[in-house]
Amino acid sequence: MATEAELEHPRKAFGWAARNASGLLSPFNFSRRETGEKDVRLKVLYSGVCHSDLHMIKNEWGETTFPIVPGHEITGIVTEVGSKVQKFKVGDNVGVGSLVGSCHSCQDCIDNLENYCPNPILTYGVEDIDGTMTYGGYSDSMVADEHFVINIPDTLPLDVAAPLLCAGITVYSPLLYFGLDKPGLNIGVVGLGGLGHMAVKFAKAFGANVTVISTSPNKKEEAIQHLGVDSFLISSDHDQMNAAIGTLDGIIDTVSAFHPLSPLIGLLKSHGKLVMLGAPVKPLELPVFPLLLGRKIVAGSHMGGLKETQEMIDFAAKHNVKPEVEVIPIDYVNTAMERLVKADVKYRFVIDIGNTLKANF
Amino acid sequence: MATEAELEHPRKAFGWAARNASGLLSPFNFSRRETGEKDVRLKVLYSGVCHSDLHMIKNEWGETTFPIVPGHEITGIVTEVGSKVQKFKVGDNVGVGSLVGSCHSCQDCIDNLENYCPNPILTYGVEDIDGTMTYGGYSDSMVADEHFVINIPDTLPLDVAAPLLCAGITVYSPLLYFGLDKPGLNIGVVGLGGLGHMAVKFAKAFGANVTVISTSPNKKEEAIQHLGVDSFLISSDHDQMNAAIGTLDGIIDTVSAFHPLSPLIGLLKSHGKLVMLGAPVKPLELPVFPLLLGRKIVAGSHMGGLKETQEMIDFAAKHNVKPEVEVIPIDYVNTAMERLVKADVKYRFVIDIGNTLKANF
Repeated sequence: MATEAELEHPRKAFGWAARNASGLLSPFNFSRRETGEKDVRLKVLYSGVCHSDLHMIKNEWGETTFPIVPGHEITGIVTEVGSKVQKFKVGDNVGVGSLVGSCHSCQDCIDNLENYCPNPILTYGVEDIDGTMTYGGYSDSMVADEHFVINIPDTLPLDVAAPLLCAGITVYSPLLYFGLDKPGLNIGVVGLGGLGHMAVKFAKAFGANVTVISTSPNKKEEAIQHLGVDSFLISSDHDQMNAAIGTLDGIIDTVSAFHPLSPLIGLLKSHGKLVMLGAPVKPLELPVFPLLLGRKIVAGSHMGGLKETQEMIDFAAKHNVKPEVEVIPIDYVNTAMERLVKADVKYRFVIDIGNTLKANF
Repeated sequence: MATEAELEHPRKAFGWAARNASGLLSPFNFSRRETGEKDVRLKVLYSGVCHSDLHMIKNEWGETTFPIVPGHEITGIVTEVGSKVQKFKVGDNVGVGSLVGSCHSCQDCIDNLENYCPNPILTYGVEDIDGTMTYGGYSDSMVADEHFVINIPDTLPLDVAAPLLCAGITVYSPLLYFGLDKPGLNIGVVGLGGLGHMAVKFAKAFGANVTVISTSPNKKEEAIQHLGVDSFLISSDHDQMNAAIGTLDGIIDTVSAFHPLSPLIGLLKSHGKLVMLGAPVKPLELPVFPLLLGRKIVAGSHMGGLKETQEMIDFAAKHNVKPEVEVIPIDYVNTAMERLVKADVKYRFVIDIGNTLKANF
């Protein structure tokens, strides 16, 4: 018997879903809406594996509705467009990131900051405007209002483009907003995973001297030789850390585990900016005196707006900023999740949906 | 027998000093240097009583050298100028704030941000360039390089001008730097003491709608009727606080006691800025998720540079921004300190040095 997910919309869809907090992903039949007049329909070719996919399928944030089809780093080819679509045509290379909707009326939406809209519609795992659930990119097709669809230039391969749509924009946006995109700045990056390695690449593309701050000495050689990092600090090495006090203009902190801020604030010059992208569940300890004495900032940032996402993609295409990806077949995804827990990936898994996801309608 | 403090310089000086961590102030003979070629000498007329004076005389920060003559909100009249002084002449109304020296070569000094110089010479309680101690404004005279002397326009009475030199610039500088000086913004002020009431006055002068957030319901009437505050939130009133969630563009937090940041971050709109001016000894708890979801900032700020201090004084004179002061004689100062501990002052004590400090050479 067909499930509700298969019947609620007219168009069949197929993906992999987690059914419970074990997080185990398995084949899943569901459905998607018809292509509305402002909608773009795409055949999904690649879907990046974001760390938040892992949090969500295991219900680690306590807000997951099962079954859940993850994936918000989606690239593919347009297969249909609605009658009022202006920006896209069949055959275009496109992408969908973390958002498929927002209120369009709040100040943030007006300012092209849909990512800060208080009523966003996330690409998967939330209630859509029609009351059905949204399903993500670990699936054969997507449909979204063209406002939330990004054009991918032909010079950017669709497998490496996928992680730009979340990891890429998540680091690009704060580098710009906090003025950390100027040539010659000294930029620190804490944590060298999916987000961190993109922060390194964009900061390098902006002309920065990049210092990675990491707990893992074994990442040093790869970081310097392969990613072009200028300097690598082991956070537990007090001599190294002390020698670097007051040297950085800004730090992009991608770590979501509990960690001390004091040494990072110490690495900043006066007026330096520590931007948090990871979200530790427990509050962190904030020493106030060092903030005062150097007029320093601790800030948060979360994804980016659609306009800025398009600008980021165009910048990446022009400046050859490409994520390091390990392309995997869909039936490897549960193993990939296990490796992601151990940070055993350089630096982003991307599922080859187009060649390996086979519908079983 | 004369003490070392009396003999180390050629010019006699007289003030009130604390001799130990009891913090009790009493008459004190010391000496000051000759007027150097770039120095301005002034007869002190008024000296504001800053909360940090209280911390210092009681050695609450653990870095006090006794005897200590406090006072860094100093106004008076020029009595002598060195041969190379360009900005001042005998008879001018002038002020000296928290700084009497800096390195003049670091980037912050070059950028007119002497207050962030890593080697500042504070107005009292530190070693001066010649190895002697600096003594503050609870004294009959001051001498300082003209770079660290502020011109006080005749329209600004010297008693109310004094607190501007620390409390005033400490709130004015972050309002400008963090873009919180635009008309029509909603600005919060936490804590309604010496700093807080100046934050209210400058924010109002910039055209803001000002909300005070306080633990003290009994300050409400005065704040609204006398200071012109637009809205007053009792921080323990959850209904009031919840109703104000997401309404403020920026908050100036003047509280130096340990206090929760989460409710304050909640009051900010997206992209809002919480600026800490008080320095709690222990780290505060920083919830990161709300920072991320609204791209919010927690920052610190500390005093202001000399150029900006002059601009602040000129702005205050032009826009009639005047601290609320209780002028006291010097022999009331120990009682004033006891009242300051209890926050029993509206809103700044200013010592009438000119009329009440009598030298006993």
